Amino acid sequence: MKFLEERIKRDGRIYPGNILKVDSFLNHQIDVGLMDKIGEAFFEAYKDRGITKILTIEASGIAIAYSAARFFKVPLLFAKKSQSLNLGNDLYTTTVSSFTYKKDYQVTISKRYLSAEDHVLIVDDFLATGNAIIGLAELCRLAGAKVEGVGICIEKGFQSGGKQLREMGYSVTSLAVIENMTDDGGIVFKS
Amino acid sequence: MKFLEERIKRDGRIYPGNILKVDSFLNHQIDVGLMDKIGEAFFEAYKDRGITKILTIEASGIAIAYSAARFFKVPLLFAKKSQSLNLGNDLYTTTVSSFTYKKDYQVTISKRYLSAEDHVLIVDDFLATGNAIIGLAELCRLAGAKVEGVGICIEKGFQSGGKQLREMGYSVTSLAVIENMTDDGGIVFKS
Repeated sequence: MKFLEERIKRDGRIYPGNILKVDSFLNHQIDVGLMDKIGEAFFEAYKDRGITKILTIEASGIAIAYSAARFFKVPLLFAKKSQSLNLGNDLYTTTVSSFTYKKDYQVTISKRYLSAEDHVLIVDDFLATGNAIIGLAELCRLAGAKVEGVGICIEKGFQSGGKQLREMGYSVTSLAVIENMTDDGGIVFKS
Repeated sequence: MKFLEERIKRDGRIYPGNILKVDSFLNHQIDVGLMDKIGEAFFEAYKDRGITKILTIEASGIAIAYSAARFFKVPLLFAKKSQSLNLGNDLYTTTVSSFTYKKDYQVTISKRYLSAEDHVLIVDDFLATGNAIIGLAELCRLAGAKVEGVGICIEKGFQSGGKQLREMGYSVTSLAVIENMTDDGGIVFKS
């Protein structure tokens, strides 16, 4: 999936502490042509899995999920983040620890929209610690839905999330896997 | 724009207090076929305005903005909500009062992605008090960008936002305008 690596090399900005900013094209300003290619790549990877729903988490996963959902011709569902613990009984809820923001938050979906009939493709922009994806997989487990795959735009290969998800048995397709970054702006992708 | 009214009548749920839930197709689970029609309707309304960017606010505006951006073949930009007042000087920032959540929050965009060269179409799922849209228009004003139009899926015509925006001189296109709702589930659209 060289197209995303090339875009990251061209337009990504690296800051000290392994921070990669891709907000000119992926998660603040969004290049819809690029996003269409991302959705198509996930479709190619999982088109034979009988996907019935694309699941992501607000906010930066939504455009990615929408692009994928157009190719699969299925609905997308985005989980909501909440700091409230008092969320009502019509929701599936789990807790996610944010590495970036150093706090826990609740992730919820309505019970109406995910069931044991569903075959789910989870998508998101980044995979680092894997906590958000594991939370989404947990919502699927609560609903009895099957996770058929996980589609990630950018995996930080030097963090543990990808390894952990694959060890849990999930099929993970990352369009760009970063092996390492240097504070002077260098970036090496896993070949 | 009868297609959205028809979908609201079929799948919307009304709760006491003029609350309309459209989360089965518009802002939690998303029907991508419907969303494509919404984007196309905004394109038809504003295709002659030289639009260079679609602007919305996270989270439920993002799929709408993405759909519109595909038709206009321009980038989309979604403003972020923050509760922090200490946000750095590379952002345009304004304060929005949330009627639903009874609190103020900051709305921000990066200065990199909006400029005096831009002709902006603002889109969102709902228009009620208008506070979120007025906040987005204020971000455009700070950037020197021109707001060419406002595309709304569902306007609550019995609240003041639409009237206020039109009196401020904005072109507002709402695909469905609700005249009133009753607690027993009745809904009347403005013809």
